[in-house]
Amino acid sequence: MEPGSRGAAPGGVSVSAVLPAGGSGERLGGATPKQFCAVQGRPLVSYAVRAMERISWISDIIVVVSPENIETMKTIIEKYGHKRVTVVEGGITRHRSIFNGLKVFAEKEFSSHLVQKPEVVIIHDAVRPFVEEDIVSKVVMAAKEHGAAGAIRPLVSTVIASAADGCLDHSLERARYRASEMPQAFLFDIIYEAYQQCTDYDLDYGTECLHLALKYCKTNAKLVEGTADLWKVTYKRDLYAAESIIKDDLSQQVCVITDVKETLAQVGFLLPESLKSQIKVEAISISLSKNDSCLQNIISGQCYNFVCVNDKRWAIQETQELVDMLEKSNIPLLCPVVLILVHLDIPENNSFSIGMEDLTMIKKFARETKKKNILVYGLLIQYK
Amino acid sequence: MEPGSRGAAPGGVSVSAVLPAGGSGERLGGATPKQFCAVQGRPLVSYAVRAMERISWISDIIVVVSPENIETMKTIIEKYGHKRVTVVEGGITRHRSIFNGLKVFAEKEFSSHLVQKPEVVIIHDAVRPFVEEDIVSKVVMAAKEHGAAGAIRPLVSTVIASAADGCLDHSLERARYRASEMPQAFLFDIIYEAYQQCTDYDLDYGTECLHLALKYCKTNAKLVEGTADLWKVTYKRDLYAAESIIKDDLSQQVCVITDVKETLAQVGFLLPESLKSQIKVEAISISLSKNDSCLQNIISGQCYNFVCVNDKRWAIQETQELVDMLEKSNIPLLCPVVLILVHLDIPENNSFSIGMEDLTMIKKFARETKKKNILVYGLLIQYK
Repeated sequence: MEPGSRGAAPGGVSVSAVLPAGGSGERLGGATPKQFCAVQGRPLVSYAVRAMERISWISDIIVVVSPENIETMKTIIEKYGHKRVTVVEGGITRHRSIFNGLKVFAEKEFSSHLVQKPEVVIIHDAVRPFVEEDIVSKVVMAAKEHGAAGAIRPLVSTVIASAADGCLDHSLERARYRASEMPQAFLFDIIYEAYQQCTDYDLDYGTECLHLALKYCKTNAKLVEGTADLWKVTYKRDLYAAESIIKDDLSQQVCVITDVKETLAQVGFLLPESLKSQIKVEAISISLSKNDSCLQNIISGQCYNFVCVNDKRWAIQETQELVDMLEKSNIPLLCPVVLILVHLDIPENNSFSIGMEDLTMIKKFARETKKKNILVYGLLIQYK
Repeated sequence: MEPGSRGAAPGGVSVSAVLPAGGSGERLGGATPKQFCAVQGRPLVSYAVRAMERISWISDIIVVVSPENIETMKTIIEKYGHKRVTVVEGGITRHRSIFNGLKVFAEKEFSSHLVQKPEVVIIHDAVRPFVEEDIVSKVVMAAKEHGAAGAIRPLVSTVIASAADGCLDHSLERARYRASEMPQAFLFDIIYEAYQQCTDYDLDYGTECLHLALKYCKTNAKLVEGTADLWKVTYKRDLYAAESIIKDDLSQQVCVITDVKETLAQVGFLLPESLKSQIKVEAISISLSKNDSCLQNIISGQCYNFVCVNDKRWAIQETQELVDMLEKSNIPLLCPVVLILVHLDIPENNSFSIGMEDLTMIKKFARETKKKNILVYGLLIQYK
């Protein structure tokens, strides 16, 4: 596939991503590696993949997993309908896994199918489910300019060095240091060169890609201040936090669908206004009857609640299509979806009215969809 | 009060604690400082105070809050029945607040009531709700020996130093460094001396007590590896995590109360066995009729679910006493309490049987307690 056939990448470069997902999750204290732990019924790695997938200018997403998890990962990709993903077998350490992921772009014999070498490669952890396009874009731009770049965060705790006797040697001045987080990005040739040159000791005991770029390619990475949501799921408490954040997100997003003239702007303005910015509203101007790819994107994205405004006769068939789309998306498996059908009864629109028969049909429809975890509500607004 | 009049402190020293709770919580992104945010309906600071309070050999607990929160803090202490707590007005920075807390022990004019100077003082954050006696004890012992000690944790992310141009200068070798966490403990005279000598710059911009002890008293603190639960609530996601951990804890602890011969050992063994270690069982051998201080301690601790085993006639009065104790504790306000009354109908125990009248009484009793968020279940086991 030609890079750039989707949305334009920042700076016009071709971009792909490598997600190391080979960790054993020993700090989590469970048998399941953390990247495969279910958060709201969906494995953590699937959220990270989705975060990358939603960025249209990322061409390929290489997920590196340990040999015993290759089938699990393939099942996840199929179940959640991930696209542009290649699964690669990892090594025994983080650096060896990332190196394997990079080889897919550079060594033809390593991959069964052709994956084009990108100018910039993003490295992002499978256990960092929350990453927005904005920070990925900033890191890619900085990598294009500086050869390497990485997101950083302020330190939460003071960092100290211990002496051989287990006593404090010195504490670091917190303001001078930062926590190195993900995503990171590199000119592909730089990071690949660094991995080719680095020692077995680096591959076995190192963890920091920025360090390799500096040590072997004399590239001082540009550091980009990231947002608080870039943290890594490390402990069980982080899984709890991820679960709560995802639940919050799901309930706070509403997509307004309408083809009623002027309604879109009104609702799009009034809804967030009246809810005092407690929800995120995405308003799109399409008819339900057009099975639009725009709507598909929203469904495969993060929007799980819908307000459908129309001024036509009760459009049960069109609503059925939306329900079908939602069902196919697996979303209602994870969390109940709320669908509010708003019908505007406008005087000049004489043909519109809801009779007993329609009401019975709506109720029956809502009962059926409820079994699929999709909650349909109807609202009739009469204009005077 | 004489130090040591409670449980014996490690090493026989007198110990008190200072909890700085003056932070503004700006990283949390809310209006309420994080230490006052409700977690399962109870302010975070109350969990930290309770964690200290449960350690019987800590004499006084000084909570330092900003002037505008003194009344809030006093209300919390009253509402949750905290004991041995003195509220002190904080300064504008963390170090100034801790210094104010220490002054209560050393400067008579600073406190309205007499607080005896301890040999060792613990410093612990109000926003670290999970701290076990074991680690506090280790840190106190180490402070007695070395003059200063603090809990440490492995770094989660690599720490890097940035150059003036915002690029990577160098990354630290992760294995050599640790995150400095709480609790910390000091010989009182050492940390007080350090605070008296330190500069305004230290008081305004510093955050690390171990650093002050090193810089002004040449005391190299002993570093003690802590458990994963020592983390600090910093971001909103940490509040989510704290909430989930507390919920988990509440539902996983069961106290078995019995005066039936041999039952205690059996139930204490069988219950955790059959639940595959998914719950923590505390078995105490007392009769419900003895209003034991041991039971009081468990209630004021963390145990919120009870299995009461008896082979006497239906003991509704005794159960009523337990319900009264629970009500007084405020626990059912936070979370439903489950009370399972197990009655053993043993053949030789001829006098025991439950008639219709008893059953009606039990049902009525359970209905009443349910209003208080205490769920009573009865279970009759007939031996053959």
